[in-house]
Amino acid sequence: MTESAFERLDDVVHQRTRLGVLTILAEVKSASFTYLRDELDLSDGNLSRHLRVLEDAGLVSITKSFKGRTPLTTVKATKAGRKALADHLSALQEMINRVQGESA
Amino acid sequence: MTESAFERLDDVVHQRTRLGVLTILAEVKSASFTYLRDELDLSDGNLSRHLRVLEDAGLVSITKSFKGRTPLTTVKATKAGRKALADHLSALQEMINRVQGESA
Repeated sequence: MTESAFERLDDVVHQRTRLGVLTILAEVKSASFTYLRDELDLSDGNLSRHLRVLEDAGLVSITKSFKGRTPLTTVKATKAGRKALADHLSALQEMINRVQGESA
Repeated sequence: MTESAFERLDDVVHQRTRLGVLTILAEVKSASFTYLRDELDLSDGNLSRHLRVLEDAGLVSITKSFKGRTPLTTVKATKAGRKALADHLSALQEMINRVQGESA
């Protein structure tokens, strides 16, 4: 049964766009708003909304600055964000292993 | 970059409850409504709603019968449902491998 792995899935992290953001931030350490938007093929509004959820949950930190005269928004995973992603992926891995064990 | 794996994530399958249902159905071949509800700790209404989404997408088939005088609802993954889950888990596995590759 997948009960315990399923119960460990966190809706804040699991939502598709947010899982994509956290996964990229695990790879690149920090990313611009524009990079995340283009990489995940999102609208500005959609990405903003999900970044706010992640920031409110303490999973990412967002810094606003300027590159010349252009505003630059930089997003980083926090330590809690990295842990939440790792825990989530570990639960997903457990679910995957069980399904694949059944079909083997 | 996780773009291609991310793009392969299907919202119908990815949603937490539906992923849980499909994962159980991959393990047990068929399950009663009651079993799914208890195993995933859901309300009747919540499970019904998500089963309808899965049925409309052709990912599960639902049979209503009686066990003695008690109505019995049985849920099975369709062939398309098994494939959708397998494809989804494969995309998730790719994302997991990339994150774990980065942190190794």
